[in-house]
Amino acid sequence: MNPKNDLNLIADKLPEWLEESRKYTVLGRPASYIPELAYAPAEALGVTVMGADGTEITAGDCGLTFTMQSISKVFTLLLALMDHGEDGVFQKVGMEPTGDDFNSMLKLELVPPGIPFNPLINAGAIAISSLIHGVSPSDKLSRILAFFREVSGDPDLTYNEAVYASESAHAHRNRSLAYFLKDNHVLDGDVEEVLDLYFKHCSIEVTCRHLARMALVLALNGKDPVSGRELIPKRYVAIAKTFMITCGMYNASGEFAIKVGMPAKSGVAGGILALVPGRFGVGVIGPALNHKGNSTAGVHLLQTMSEAMDWSIF
Amino acid sequence: MNPKNDLNLIADKLPEWLEESRKYTVLGRPASYIPELAYAPAEALGVTVMGADGTEITAGDCGLTFTMQSISKVFTLLLALMDHGEDGVFQKVGMEPTGDDFNSMLKLELVPPGIPFNPLINAGAIAISSLIHGVSPSDKLSRILAFFREVSGDPDLTYNEAVYASESAHAHRNRSLAYFLKDNHVLDGDVEEVLDLYFKHCSIEVTCRHLARMALVLALNGKDPVSGRELIPKRYVAIAKTFMITCGMYNASGEFAIKVGMPAKSGVAGGILALVPGRFGVGVIGPALNHKGNSTAGVHLLQTMSEAMDWSIF
Amino acid sequence: MNPKNDLNLIADKLPEWLEESRKYTVLGRPASYIPELAYAPAEALGVTVMGADGTEITAGDCGLTFTMQSISKVFTLLLALMDHGEDGVFQKVGMEPTGDDFNSMLKLELVPPGIPFNPLINAGAIAISSLIHGVSPSDKLSRILAFFREVSGDPDLTYNEAVYASESAHAHRNRSLAYFLKDNHVLDGDVEEVLDLYFKHCSIEVTCRHLARMALVLALNGKDPVSGRELIPKRYVAIAKTFMITCGMYNASGEFAIKVGMPAKSGVAGGILALVPGRFGVGVIGPALNHKGNSTAGVHLLQTMSEAMDWSIF
Amino acid sequence: MNPKNDLNLIADKLPEWLEESRKYTVLGRPASYIPELAYAPAEALGVTVMGADGTEITAGDCGLTFTMQSISKVFTLLLALMDHGEDGVFQKVGMEPTGDDFNSMLKLELVPPGIPFNPLINAGAIAISSLIHGVSPSDKLSRILAFFREVSGDPDLTYNEAVYASESAHAHRNRSLAYFLKDNHVLDGDVEEVLDLYFKHCSIEVTCRHLARMALVLALNGKDPVSGRELIPKRYVAIAKTFMITCGMYNASGEFAIKVGMPAKSGVAGGILALVPGRFGVGVIGPALNHKGNSTAGVHLLQTMSEAMDWSIF
Repeated sequence: MNPKNDLNLIADKLPEWLEESRKYTVLGRPASYIPELAYAPAEALGVTVMGADGTEITAGDCGLTFTMQSISKVFTLLLALMDHGEDGVFQKVGMEPTGDDFNSMLKLELVPPGIPFNPLINAGAIAISSLIHGVSPSDKLSRILAFFREVSGDPDLTYNEAVYASESAHAHRNRSLAYFLKDNHVLDGDVEEVLDLYFKHCSIEVTCRHLARMALVLALNGKDPVSGRELIPKRYVAIAKTFMITCGMYNASGEFAIKVGMPAKSGVAGGILALVPGRFGVGVIGPALNHKGNSTAGVHLLQTMSEAMDWSIF
Repeated sequence: MNPKNDLNLIADKLPEWLEESRKYTVLGRPASYIPELAYAPAEALGVTVMGADGTEITAGDCGLTFTMQSISKVFTLLLALMDHGEDGVFQKVGMEPTGDDFNSMLKLELVPPGIPFNPLINAGAIAISSLIHGVSPSDKLSRILAFFREVSGDPDLTYNEAVYASESAHAHRNRSLAYFLKDNHVLDGDVEEVLDLYFKHCSIEVTCRHLARMALVLALNGKDPVSGRELIPKRYVAIAKTFMITCGMYNASGEFAIKVGMPAKSGVAGGILALVPGRFGVGVIGPALNHKGNSTAGVHLLQTMSEAMDWSIF
Repeated sequence: MNPKNDLNLIADKLPEWLEESRKYTVLGRPASYIPELAYAPAEALGVTVMGADGTEITAGDCGLTFTMQSISKVFTLLLALMDHGEDGVFQKVGMEPTGDDFNSMLKLELVPPGIPFNPLINAGAIAISSLIHGVSPSDKLSRILAFFREVSGDPDLTYNEAVYASESAHAHRNRSLAYFLKDNHVLDGDVEEVLDLYFKHCSIEVTCRHLARMALVLALNGKDPVSGRELIPKRYVAIAKTFMITCGMYNASGEFAIKVGMPAKSGVAGGILALVPGRFGVGVIGPALNHKGNSTAGVHLLQTMSEAMDWSIF
Repeated sequence: MNPKNDLNLIADKLPEWLEESRKYTVLGRPASYIPELAYAPAEALGVTVMGADGTEITAGDCGLTFTMQSISKVFTLLLALMDHGEDGVFQKVGMEPTGDDFNSMLKLELVPPGIPFNPLINAGAIAISSLIHGVSPSDKLSRILAFFREVSGDPDLTYNEAVYASESAHAHRNRSLAYFLKDNHVLDGDVEEVLDLYFKHCSIEVTCRHLARMALVLALNGKDPVSGRELIPKRYVAIAKTFMITCGMYNASGEFAIKVGMPAKSGVAGGILALVPGRFGVGVIGPALNHKGNSTAGVHLLQTMSEAMDWSIF
């Protein structure tokens, strides 16, 4: 477990692993529920690995920009935990995987008291968005952007206007979820304001490098890899990592835990943020998705790396 | 089956049946999901029976005004059938009872293609509202009001502004349903406009007498009881009566069919519209509801009348 | 509504209606869940109409023998009502359509207290089988056979051994339902004994003529068409007819009520028993089923007849 | 992270932690679904911690014998993996948490192809039991007992006849699950034989000491703590540990992962097997269960220990 040797091995092998995994892009296709996502290049695959000392290794289409989508939910959860503590957050969302699709409403109707089962399904993430402190909608957005910028190390990080507009215009199912939550007394405040914030943080635009840096902060238990300063309390990072294992890959999280074993979170733009505790942050982009919403080639690449490097936490 | 004798018998017995049934008001309570409904007098019970010749018999609190709520769905269905025909309507809603609560979303998610199972559950009635012809929202409302006024014989029938406002402000679950339908491509047009029309027709204010008159038109296969003119094609009335048997009393429709056997439709303000084919229209108001949303005393009164007069169609 | 004229018209038209409907056999196929049913001739279609005076009209493959399957559930319900009264029966089964498949277990798990929603779905019919009086399994079977023989007018009616054996050997889903009911305290007695009785009454072998005669007894409110003797109390027949409208055609009952409007019950061997109150009993056989378990051609034939003769009760 | 110091600290603190946690027994009660389990002492709480070198620390009622129940499922899964490999096992069961009760049948009906979501829910464990190699039922049982004896280090380990008989007599819901699986083509062979094997391995009788020893073998990646011999391939142990995190504590697994963070498996007799990778095996018994089926005091004790010793894997 010599970090230096590991980095050399990764640098050596990564192009080969990536090209092998790229073949799996044909098994999926970009998300089409909003037009903006459907434009993504289906055959793209890119990766950035960042070591604890900040060393970066990249391969493939790592210059591709894309929106965080569900990956942003990990960091709004962290911000909500910093704003409200565990007790405050877990009054609004539970801690259990659902076994259902990420936009399912079944358990909201069937399981009293009708709160989202966890903060990483859509219903839960919308509830979390309603918890972000701020005196106004723009203040809440500013706080989210400030936090994401700090964790990613990029002061220019912002959301993509076109994707945000497209999300907002096509978000009938998320509106349905949000109004259901309102009816169940889970959402405080104005539903459309909460949704607007949710669409904006889902539309934050990144590259693999951003994801790798954000993952590395989690891998280092919340510490900035350069300054060593605590950006996020360790306990909250532990909570986030736990959810990434149990619920991070939609309703394929259990399979990912068995086959890859890395805390990870995927988004429907094709991104995956993954980490090796104490050691590496990883960012992957591969827009072609399987039917559960995860990057086909991205999952294959992470499985290849995890097996080769013995990265599973189990 | 001498109508004259029947009317005499009803006139004779109705006060007694009503007072006996009034005791059942204590087993329920007025709907509370919007404040305006909760103000209704819990112990009230009123009834109007209208014979085919227009003779009226009343008992109890038949002067009480209340909103139609779900009872209006029978007549928007009829208007939609007149606007689009059977094929047009049944592309948007099915013909089956659900076995679920009237505001349930389970089958929209679980049963492809995700259209409402029938036009009398909330999801189905919202879909039906989207089908009403009109060049503008106000035109659609005007057409609904004109139709309801013609069937009820009251040119002044209109919706209650306070109840409408309260519905609209507290309709999170209905909004959730409507956006889910939009996502399933069941709703054309603007969701909020459709909902606005839906809230307005649910808020149309009536007395038992209106309901009895409207029921009588259905009992006469769509003919005006005074002029004999066809207000609604017979085939569409048959469709409406069938739905009233299979789905008219929420998810207690099966029990009502067994115990009462009259085509009927209830609303959460406590009204019930019921009919004896060819012979009688009946309007009942009793705001105290059981947990399935039907008037406790109203159901008891109809069961008493049906058993005494042998009114079951089965 | 002259019965004589109607019979003449039917006799005249029936062959044409039947051949027209036979084309719809290609849209379905015989049930395959047990091998014995799959052997049935897919293109067969036969019908018997029996008038109140016992006059019979037949067309097509009316000599074909087949097993009653779910059609038997109407008559075991009637026998259970005669054995226990309404209160006794409705402690074990409800009165509501489910909207689910006939062998679904969802509502048993989801809706307290976990009793079958109605006596015509599999779970409900198994519960009903457990209610049949008798000092021994063979005594219960004898009582069922005696009742079915009396209603059908055929003292030799019995079950098909091969179909019964095949049912019993392949009835994993029904066993699953029965043990679930046992766990929910719905079934008294030995599960396998109850199932054995259920498989046997489902395997009772008939022709269209039997079904027409049994339907006619129901059409005559329980009276024997020849002797005029009451075989079944009128109230129980009304209950059965109500269930035939709300639940008789599996989860296509609502559509059948709208399009045909006759109290009816179908079975997965392709039989349909239907009736015109006070006037006609109808038996149909068409083994090719649609995906909801109803005879494709049989439903078409009944719709044709109902429309031509104005037989809908609505 | 000095093992010696840790053991001293645990030895010092364990009695205090245990007595503090014992107070939580009043919040639950022993399982009552079979009479034998209901007899367990509700206020009991016992624990054994076993270090990698075999050192044991005990506190409370660690002499209490109890049946493994669902804890046995971890080891039948391991045996099935050794018998069939990953591909063979994962044709019959999935890898996902369900979010539903451990005996739920919803997903078997709703989610094609109807295989159990994971091997630790009842449906999954019954499917796993059907995979155990053996020329006869008794040979399969012998193989299970031999494996459990080897892992526990107790050549006399066996099942409790009275609990087994009680399970078998009251197992209507498990029979229902098994026949549903048979209908879904998940179970090969005779259903009753599979269930018999399942009831027997659930009835294997242990003390905390056995659980701690079995947990320690998993903590050591499958190696015998005394001989160092590999009893289970490391890869299969990793799979088991993953399932213990995602599904080990029924539908409170997510919460347990957040609050305790140890791979663990509970049983309805009140036992919990838990481990610290590479370091400790832990066995707990506390028969009073919460409504999700986990020992109230046992969970509290493990949370106390995990927080004090920093044992979470996250």
